[in-house]
Amino acid sequence: MAKKIFMILTFAGVPLSVIGTLMHWSSTLLFIIYCVTIVALASYMGRATESLAIVTGPRIGGLLNATFGNAVELIISIFALKAGLVGVVLASLTGSVLGNLLLVAGLSFFVGGLKFKRQHFNVHDARHNSALLIFAVIVAFVIPEVFAMDMNDSKTLSLSVGISVILIALYLAALFFKLVTHRGVYQSKAEGGAGHHDEEPEWGKGKAMAILLAATVAVAYVAENLVHTFEEVGESFGWSELFIGIIIVAIVGNAAEHASAVIMAYKNKMDIAVEIAVGSTLQVAMFVAPVLVLISLLFEKSMPLVFSMPEMVSMVVAVLLAISIANDGETNWFEGLTLLGAYVIMGIGFYLL
Amino acid sequence: MAKKIFMILTFAGVPLSVIGTLMHWSSTLLFIIYCVTIVALASYMGRATESLAIVTGPRIGGLLNATFGNAVELIISIFALKAGLVGVVLASLTGSVLGNLLLVAGLSFFVGGLKFKRQHFNVHDARHNSALLIFAVIVAFVIPEVFAMDMNDSKTLSLSVGISVILIALYLAALFFKLVTHRGVYQSKAEGGAGHHDEEPEWGKGKAMAILLAATVAVAYVAENLVHTFEEVGESFGWSELFIGIIIVAIVGNAAEHASAVIMAYKNKMDIAVEIAVGSTLQVAMFVAPVLVLISLLFEKSMPLVFSMPEMVSMVVAVLLAISIANDGETNWFEGLTLLGAYVIMGIGFYLL
Amino acid sequence: MAKKIFMILTFAGVPLSVIGTLMHWSSTLLFIIYCVTIVALASYMGRATESLAIVTGPRIGGLLNATFGNAVELIISIFALKAGLVGVVLASLTGSVLGNLLLVAGLSFFVGGLKFKRQHFNVHDARHNSALLIFAVIVAFVIPEVFAMDMNDSKTLSLSVGISVILIALYLAALFFKLVTHRGVYQSKAEGGAGHHDEEPEWGKGKAMAILLAATVAVAYVAENLVHTFEEVGESFGWSELFIGIIIVAIVGNAAEHASAVIMAYKNKMDIAVEIAVGSTLQVAMFVAPVLVLISLLFEKSMPLVFSMPEMVSMVVAVLLAISIANDGETNWFEGLTLLGAYVIMGIGFYLL
Repeated sequence: MAKKIFMILTFAGVPLSVIGTLMHWSSTLLFIIYCVTIVALASYMGRATESLAIVTGPRIGGLLNATFGNAVELIISIFALKAGLVGVVLASLTGSVLGNLLLVAGLSFFVGGLKFKRQHFNVHDARHNSALLIFAVIVAFVIPEVFAMDMNDSKTLSLSVGISVILIALYLAALFFKLVTHRGVYQSKAEGGAGHHDEEPEWGKGKAMAILLAATVAVAYVAENLVHTFEEVGESFGWSELFIGIIIVAIVGNAAEHASAVIMAYKNKMDIAVEIAVGSTLQVAMFVAPVLVLISLLFEKSMPLVFSMPEMVSMVVAVLLAISIANDGETNWFEGLTLLGAYVIMGIGFYLL
Repeated sequence: MAKKIFMILTFAGVPLSVIGTLMHWSSTLLFIIYCVTIVALASYMGRATESLAIVTGPRIGGLLNATFGNAVELIISIFALKAGLVGVVLASLTGSVLGNLLLVAGLSFFVGGLKFKRQHFNVHDARHNSALLIFAVIVAFVIPEVFAMDMNDSKTLSLSVGISVILIALYLAALFFKLVTHRGVYQSKAEGGAGHHDEEPEWGKGKAMAILLAATVAVAYVAENLVHTFEEVGESFGWSELFIGIIIVAIVGNAAEHASAVIMAYKNKMDIAVEIAVGSTLQVAMFVAPVLVLISLLFEKSMPLVFSMPEMVSMVVAVLLAISIANDGETNWFEGLTLLGAYVIMGIGFYLL
Repeated sequence: MAKKIFMILTFAGVPLSVIGTLMHWSSTLLFIIYCVTIVALASYMGRATESLAIVTGPRIGGLLNATFGNAVELIISIFALKAGLVGVVLASLTGSVLGNLLLVAGLSFFVGGLKFKRQHFNVHDARHNSALLIFAVIVAFVIPEVFAMDMNDSKTLSLSVGISVILIALYLAALFFKLVTHRGVYQSKAEGGAGHHDEEPEWGKGKAMAILLAATVAVAYVAENLVHTFEEVGESFGWSELFIGIIIVAIVGNAAEHASAVIMAYKNKMDIAVEIAVGSTLQVAMFVAPVLVLISLLFEKSMPLVFSMPEMVSMVVAVLLAISIANDGETNWFEGLTLLGAYVIMGIGFYLL
């Protein structure tokens, strides 16, 4: 069902995007078309990555997932950086972190909790991820924020580059830890080996790669145009660029993942739901964000790893809340509601800013 | 014993308050009479609520306790808001949070720990409460603090109102979770069902309601007069309004609860002691504070949910300390002393401000 | 082996320090000689303290260790205070906290983790220490930081003195808790009584005291001279006083401890490794820092307990990261790497400041 819808949206959205762009339709209309098309294309990229991951085995598959999982966001952000919209990129990074930690996890816990009284997930993974969240958001993002206050721009950029390199290195080390040295060490008994082996890839290797390539090119095309609608759309709706970045771009860039996390929670597969929500957050914070800092060095306007104070504080308190809730390896509807409540509070805040 | 003393204090305090007010006694004397009278009346309100809670059964009883538990504080604060003392109200909210989390919990752990080497309480409740503390204090209080820096007053008020509505909604959801959907799910075996059922209410339904009503009216009368002594008392003792709000009002408004928490700890009923300390904090942060924000809209001077920086930071670090100490479901005298040490540090700070 | 090297370094370093000082060698050369000599002398002080601790039994031994463990740092800092270098002292306190929590613990976990897949330590101790870390760094250091913004210098100093007294009192209470009232209560079974009793002191009581005294005098002499090289060394290398304090002084002052923690981790004695790393942090935060505040009252320039904002924030996030990693009583190489990553990030930050 969902696959069919996405197929239709893709095969209608891509041509409409091209035609609309060439014929200069109204920004608002284009904005909607672009967003829908990207969401649909993202679902293809996700399925292609999944297929490749099964074909190539768990190690390279994990790496693929980890790299392509946020490809859409990365692509949108690169075009935004190229257009000099540093503020929008930082905002959309913030939005991804908040969206994954609060909205996705919150919806998953809430929806899952309506069906099941108590749901469980692997505590070891949760703690491993908690430490990484604190490292990425509370150390690597807060330090440049505070130090930058007493630094000139060039030093701030040097610090940002240094931190970015460390973040990427630690991200790779985390993959190495999870996929090589400590593979299966912390696995809960319930899962174990079986069940993963007999998975059938949806597409063969060649087809998956072709689809991944085509979808990526299409996303890139649409994303570039999407970025240029931000200003006008913001004006017509009275939304600040900040709000567009934090709420809209983040939701569009992650829609596919969001949906699958909630579905997994509803099926009581909380390990996967949590992995998607927290794993995506970590990808954004430890891979997408630092890669964007490094890429921005190629453009006219570099992007230091310095968020605005409201962005920074929102991410920090979101991490503290998420960690405190995930701490015991159990969820229920009320914990989901708490996360959603925090998301709404921040949403109101950014809307009013 | 204690009941007799409170009876004497009530039947002496109420007439003295009336006479003293009419005869314009010195502010300092009146301040003391008012404070003592309120503490005595609060004990009656507490007992009446307890009786009603037993009569009406645990669900409505829990609701009653949750609503009337901080009635005294609410009443004092409403009169302070009416008198335009927004700063005092914010300070007394801060004082309640700090007083409950650090002073009450600290004294309970310390006194209980002098008698018992290790005391235990329900870890599940502690974690549930930890997440709520982080939600209320670290998300809902910190966000407006930081966002308000870049906002005008009217937007700050809108944000405050939005957050207040969410806080109250989540507070009600937490009651629903605790009293309905997950009632008894996380209960420790030791307690269980028995022991609660055969409790005898002190007063019948009618008497309890009459006493609750009478005491509430009396508290309201005294509280209104109390508020007007703050300025002069502050001047004579060299106390800032902040200090009066944070230390004095908070202690007077919560004296009855404080005493019973410590008594419970001494009897090794740590679940109840912790419930009083942390439950009161949550009531203040998730119910009293947002209700006051909404009520303040009716008065000339509205109260945004924006604390002073020292208030905010004190609450945040108090929450982090309390969570870290309560995390393992065990207490001892040293943990109590640590909490008390934090309270004294903040007390010195506010005194010197 | 190591003992021999330290012996050679001591018997070469002390005379070289004296001669070099008298002959006014270049600051950079002297700086190196002084640093090496102090590291070598510190190893003697450590061994003498160990011997005394065994002779005097665990209670007084624990007290001795707790007092002399950071004697070198205390001595260097007193001379720096006497020279009016308040900023350097605060920086070196920061450096000790960061060095112990991130560098020492990080190296221990990493090196130990290369050999062992999972290493365990006592969770009870870890939680006890976590609460103290939050008390010392997040309550006792953050409160004066924030309150000082609205205070004049004299009030800030009063607050600092008050907090220092409370910190020292709580530090002594923690020792009383650990060595008297709750001795052995939280001990893991693996250790227990045996193994500690039959330890042979390296030196007899008299010899140990003589060596401790001699080494302390020598350290004092070298430290006084070391402090006066900071300015010139900073200029030649382009290092700020902050960087010298945070990175160099902290490493020199703690080198001996650092080495033994890593060795213990490599031997899979994680309880001891963690105790050294976290115990040293607590000594610095709860004993050395407040004692220095009180001692500074005797000098011309008093030292309030107010760090710079980057110092403060670095310590707070280091504590949050360390607590989150130590929370489960287990370590592996990746957790060590995470702590080291945080240390490098802060190191870059302070270098660029």
